[in-house]
Amino acid sequence: MAGDDQGTLYPVEVLREFTQQAFVKAGLPDDDAAVVTDNLIEANLRGVDTHGITRLLAIYIKRLRAGIVNAHPNITIASESSSAILVDGDNGLGAVVATWAMQEAIRRAGQHGACWAGVRHSNHFGATAYFTLMAAARDMVGIGMTNGPAAMAPWGGSKAYMSTNPISFAVPGEEEPVVFDMATSVAARGHILLAVTRGDERIPEGWALDKEGRPTTDPQAAVEGTVMPMAGYKGYVLSMMIDILCGCLTGAAFGPHLGPLYGQFERPQDIGHLLGAIDVGRMVPIGEFKSRLAQMVQEIKATPLAAGASGIFIPGEIEAGKRTRRLQEGIPIPEGVRHEFLEVARDLDIPFE
Amino acid sequence: MAGDDQGTLYPVEVLREFTQQAFVKAGLPDDDAAVVTDNLIEANLRGVDTHGITRLLAIYIKRLRAGIVNAHPNITIASESSSAILVDGDNGLGAVVATWAMQEAIRRAGQHGACWAGVRHSNHFGATAYFTLMAAARDMVGIGMTNGPAAMAPWGGSKAYMSTNPISFAVPGEEEPVVFDMATSVAARGHILLAVTRGDERIPEGWALDKEGRPTTDPQAAVEGTVMPMAGYKGYVLSMMIDILCGCLTGAAFGPHLGPLYGQFERPQDIGHLLGAIDVGRMVPIGEFKSRLAQMVQEIKATPLAAGASGIFIPGEIEAGKRTRRLQEGIPIPEGVRHEFLEVARDLDIPFE
Repeated sequence: MAGDDQGTLYPVEVLREFTQQAFVKAGLPDDDAAVVTDNLIEANLRGVDTHGITRLLAIYIKRLRAGIVNAHPNITIASESSSAILVDGDNGLGAVVATWAMQEAIRRAGQHGACWAGVRHSNHFGATAYFTLMAAARDMVGIGMTNGPAAMAPWGGSKAYMSTNPISFAVPGEEEPVVFDMATSVAARGHILLAVTRGDERIPEGWALDKEGRPTTDPQAAVEGTVMPMAGYKGYVLSMMIDILCGCLTGAAFGPHLGPLYGQFERPQDIGHLLGAIDVGRMVPIGEFKSRLAQMVQEIKATPLAAGASGIFIPGEIEAGKRTRRLQEGIPIPEGVRHEFLEVARDLDIPFE
Repeated sequence: MAGDDQGTLYPVEVLREFTQQAFVKAGLPDDDAAVVTDNLIEANLRGVDTHGITRLLAIYIKRLRAGIVNAHPNITIASESSSAILVDGDNGLGAVVATWAMQEAIRRAGQHGACWAGVRHSNHFGATAYFTLMAAARDMVGIGMTNGPAAMAPWGGSKAYMSTNPISFAVPGEEEPVVFDMATSVAARGHILLAVTRGDERIPEGWALDKEGRPTTDPQAAVEGTVMPMAGYKGYVLSMMIDILCGCLTGAAFGPHLGPLYGQFERPQDIGHLLGAIDVGRMVPIGEFKSRLAQMVQEIKATPLAAGASGIFIPGEIEAGKRTRRLQEGIPIPEGVRHEFLEVARDLDIPFE
């Protein structure tokens, strides 16, 4: 699902303009529309199409128009100390709420060395790396995590309790930042849904359990079951901890109590996030940090290859390469998504193509 | 290697007294001896025998007596802002240095809401959970990570560059804290060494690569090769990020530049750590946090079991149960380790048994 480069290539600026117009027409203020547009377009540029306009534009618009996401949230700091704040997102779009919270965390990290922002009453916020990269761009360490709707069972269980809760870290580099953003499942649920849509006969072993908690390679049985945590028990405990920090620590919903993104337009999601920033320069001179990191990157790239391996990649390297290419060549829009965009354009009475 | 319960049972207080005496005789001040003794005995109590006196007492004593670890470090804050400090461990024992750093992080988190302590010029510090549990005991979120000697190749490489760098999180609960402490490898290198010692014919698939970077189940080929990261590429990127935060961010060594724990008594390890605390009560009332967490724990435990599963465990639950049992029944000391202790006792002229 992530960036298979199939579809018609559209120039980035065309898609950006369309997305901005769509969100404004759906009721967002210009500035907030610009924030969520940038969040989604950046995911597509980096090749993470599961978190770009290609998957999220239509559903975000639908939720805004249904009034189940607040287009004019009153985002506030519900409690604060100098380096730990709790942000209430007032049911705004996740990208808007989390950008606000991360900007505040970055500002305070600049003053005090570090800051955490817990966020409650938020919604789906796109790719977690978007927020950690905001910190890296300011020469800070960025840390981000979010909870989400249940898709994964506790280790040893047969019923979904937690989401594939992702975690992201980013640090500034001499040229590119080093960044990762990983779900705590083996494979995203989207890949399994896609296998069903395509009519695939099987999915790889280790991706999913059926509804009795047995390993399955049957896509339909997998959809009715749960996705498997990465690294077995370890993925489950990491996912649970992320849910504790995003839900229990903020007062957002947790576990199966979060609302879904799709198919339900009455209950807010009440998603929680935890976003943090550490100002590198308050710990060591930023130049020293970057030069040590450049040495590490160079040494890792020079490691002798394993038998059969084609190369060694630094976290974020593939995405940065894709970003450069897509900025020049455009973003591929698959035919099904193109039709979705035409429908959005018709509904909102804005041009597309 | 972790807690197989084989060996003669010794009362905890007997082992604690012996360990304390050994460290004092090896040159540590009483207070520092008490810190490292508690660190190691707690690991044994929790069943993590790879990080208890069972593996670490003899080598720590040997390094202290060789003068390659500083028995009287001048631990200082090398740079500081209110919520991010850099601690210079002056080549002290890791447990002593990291306890000092975490105490300072906890104190500052109480004042400012959160604090990070980066640590450089340290040594092997035992189990990472020891430090995160210090925070949980003070009603704070604890986060800890450390780098270590190279054992794992970058994904796609055939030569060890990074350690199996562990990460731990702990949060306070109504009764027990929820805590995890995971290496970023599939299996600890100690398990592979043990297989060689025992003359096992094979190790499980997925644990290790040989020196050409090919998967192997031959214990000897695995020892000459590298351990596999957990969850494939994801374990590699998480391990690299931990090395960046513990090494590049602090000025400690990183990658293959760290000194080994064993077999080398000329070069300090120069290990780096990153330890953090968030004061829960500065974000939400601690009672609300604990009651939400208790609900989550109860709900997870009540999940229907998967086919063939014997139960669902909360992170830290097995270790807490083992701690209760071992406090009553004693800590098992395998015969080989007992002989090691007798040797330590003879060398230091202190009683054992």
